Amino acid sequence: MTDRSPLAPAAFPALPEIAGVTRRIARAHYKNWDRCDLTYVELTPGTVVAGVTTQNVCCSTEVEMCREGIAHGRARALIVNAGNSNAFTGYRGREAVEQIVDQVAAHLACDPREVFVCSTGVIGVPLPKDKAHAGVAKVISFDTPSASWEETAQTITTTDTFPKGAAASAVVGGTTVQVAGIVKGSGMIAPDMATMLGYIFTDAAVAPDLLQAMLSEATAGSFNAITVDSDTSTSDTVLLFATGRAGNPVLTTRDDPGADALYAAIRSVALDLAQLVVRDGEGASKFIEITVTGAVSDASAKRVALSIANSPLVKTAIAGEDANWGRVVMAVGKAGEPADRDRLAIRFGDHWVAKDGLPVDGYDEGPVAAHLKGQDIRVGADLGLGDGRATVWTCDLTHGYISINADYRS
Amino acid sequence: MTDRSPLAPAAFPALPEIAGVTRRIARAHYKNWDRCDLTYVELTPGTVVAGVTTQNVCCSTEVEMCREGIAHGRARALIVNAGNSNAFTGYRGREAVEQIVDQVAAHLACDPREVFVCSTGVIGVPLPKDKAHAGVAKVISFDTPSASWEETAQTITTTDTFPKGAAASAVVGGTTVQVAGIVKGSGMIAPDMATMLGYIFTDAAVAPDLLQAMLSEATAGSFNAITVDSDTSTSDTVLLFATGRAGNPVLTTRDDPGADALYAAIRSVALDLAQLVVRDGEGASKFIEITVTGAVSDASAKRVALSIANSPLVKTAIAGEDANWGRVVMAVGKAGEPADRDRLAIRFGDHWVAKDGLPVDGYDEGPVAAHLKGQDIRVGADLGLGDGRATVWTCDLTHGYISINADYRS
Repeated sequence: MTDRSPLAPAAFPALPEIAGVTRRIARAHYKNWDRCDLTYVELTPGTVVAGVTTQNVCCSTEVEMCREGIAHGRARALIVNAGNSNAFTGYRGREAVEQIVDQVAAHLACDPREVFVCSTGVIGVPLPKDKAHAGVAKVISFDTPSASWEETAQTITTTDTFPKGAAASAVVGGTTVQVAGIVKGSGMIAPDMATMLGYIFTDAAVAPDLLQAMLSEATAGSFNAITVDSDTSTSDTVLLFATGRAGNPVLTTRDDPGADALYAAIRSVALDLAQLVVRDGEGASKFIEITVTGAVSDASAKRVALSIANSPLVKTAIAGEDANWGRVVMAVGKAGEPADRDRLAIRFGDHWVAKDGLPVDGYDEGPVAAHLKGQDIRVGADLGLGDGRATVWTCDLTHGYISINADYRS
Repeated sequence: MTDRSPLAPAAFPALPEIAGVTRRIARAHYKNWDRCDLTYVELTPGTVVAGVTTQNVCCSTEVEMCREGIAHGRARALIVNAGNSNAFTGYRGREAVEQIVDQVAAHLACDPREVFVCSTGVIGVPLPKDKAHAGVAKVISFDTPSASWEETAQTITTTDTFPKGAAASAVVGGTTVQVAGIVKGSGMIAPDMATMLGYIFTDAAVAPDLLQAMLSEATAGSFNAITVDSDTSTSDTVLLFATGRAGNPVLTTRDDPGADALYAAIRSVALDLAQLVVRDGEGASKFIEITVTGAVSDASAKRVALSIANSPLVKTAIAGEDANWGRVVMAVGKAGEPADRDRLAIRFGDHWVAKDGLPVDGYDEGPVAAHLKGQDIRVGADLGLGDGRATVWTCDLTHGYISINADYRS
């Protein structure tokens, strides 16, 4: 692990235990390193699962198999391999995943579709079957002690500079339910060794369709509203497991009492985890929140916001603490969405620098420059056309990103 | 001007004079510098014009007015201001452009629509009318000597590290016609001081509609097939002027004798100029040609090729001379175009590194590594789905790009 990101929180948060969730970790030695790199999470029988996966059409075998499991809707175990993404490895890679699934399903005497496997790391090298077999044998053994949330969050990392977790709770039908999540990722896909993998666990009892709807909705404003470098991993996966052990009446629709509270808790955890990924963005020195208002629709606002967030020139300007609003104008204009140059307004922090297509009269750069010297930067663009709005998060583009990604040999 | 790009050609090429084209340059002092920054090109009466402009919806006044002139189809003069893009300057910026147009149109006693003005440089500062007026008075005066092609190409530059020109000729109806062009640009929009402006001149006689069709077709495979940083300037403009002074029979359709030869010459100049922009890409140390074959259509192939060309992870890998084909796979997969992981093949230079979704058997990294150590890099991706193909050009992403764009204050 390289130096801890300057944007990292002070410490790993206290996460609650989730009834029905057991974690164990081991050293599979997928790479030539001495750290735990294999994670096993056992889920109580009856656990419901929802998931979202990468849109990259060259996705890994793991992603394809996770999709089959998500469609099945039930889960008994999660395995995460760190150090080898097993992507683009053809039939040999698929055999390795099937071997893990068979080994775990035999141990739990469960349907193979209920075993979820994710891998992250180097592309194009088949996951070594012997190392996987020995590692899995360790983690499914009761001789291996259970791992803390922080140890588990650490074990799924690759190039991350800190482990990432978040929690929230909700009251559902008079019962308090817990939501805890962990995530790894620091570039969309990075020194052959990153990708975003996120896992959220709750003891709430929720029907599969509702759980999936909640995850999909929460993802749109969290995991799908962040970008580090505009590159989309072949392995990105977020899974949400509901063990049902809290004992609340099973939620089946959003109108059920407590469903909104549970959704708010899931969304809070998803947003915290997504922002932690940005705070560990490769080379990041600034955390950037971009809000677009006044667009013709929310979807249009999000596309404009991502155009700003992905612009190398905007990201380098913020790295340079330069109130270069002209680059924001450029990024709005290239998004391919409705915009009117002469209605556009741009702000940094709470300070408007341009309105109605012109620099504001009496513009004072002082407070803007002060805002840009901070670590948490806010950029706003109002298009002046309608009520559409969206917020996305990104980090700046620095020499650190180039060093991590170019000054490296595979 | 900073250090000359390592990818620059040894010298400015010898460009032919184009009958009916006169050039003069002057110091307007748009910035606090002592160099020529105002270019005037006078075109013989009857000159036909075609043009293509940025798709950025926040375009400059200059772009809007150029579009009106292109629709008119005739040109008598071109003015290029360097050092101030006049973009996002509202009514004050428009007044400055109208003043230049009126001044030149009065001098030439021509329709104001026949005067084309382009500006490049800092955004958000209205072009100073007094400096523009004094500068234009100088360049329209016969006391100012005519400028060479190289001097003219130098005068339109901003952050470019070398002047750029290209030429070709064709035989049309037994008459040899000349095509000469100049271009400036090094980022799509860069330290508030770049943008792509291209001007091509020919003495051929061509009807306006045919000239526009030829330019649009040539642009698709040249100026619209390059990317430095995926950012689209608010001012990008390419104009093609045909003076008709060569005396060939006026070309009106692509079936006319010589029309194909003229098109080939225009396309050759457009491609040379576009590639020179990439060779001056900010911080570039490698010139990269990306060819995608086997796509479902040419348009699909181009979108996949641009996805590869714009990927920060592909560009940093090539900067690091790293045969990181996994990143190419990722970029193919994120393009949103049809692709099949298990039919995909990737090459660097002429060396295939992966086929059918797997690393090639007996892959020897030696020749690939040798290719990547060169300055001119070729990347190929065959999708194995159809006959669609496209080639695009880009440069690598280096510390130099960050230094130029972040280690800078406006």
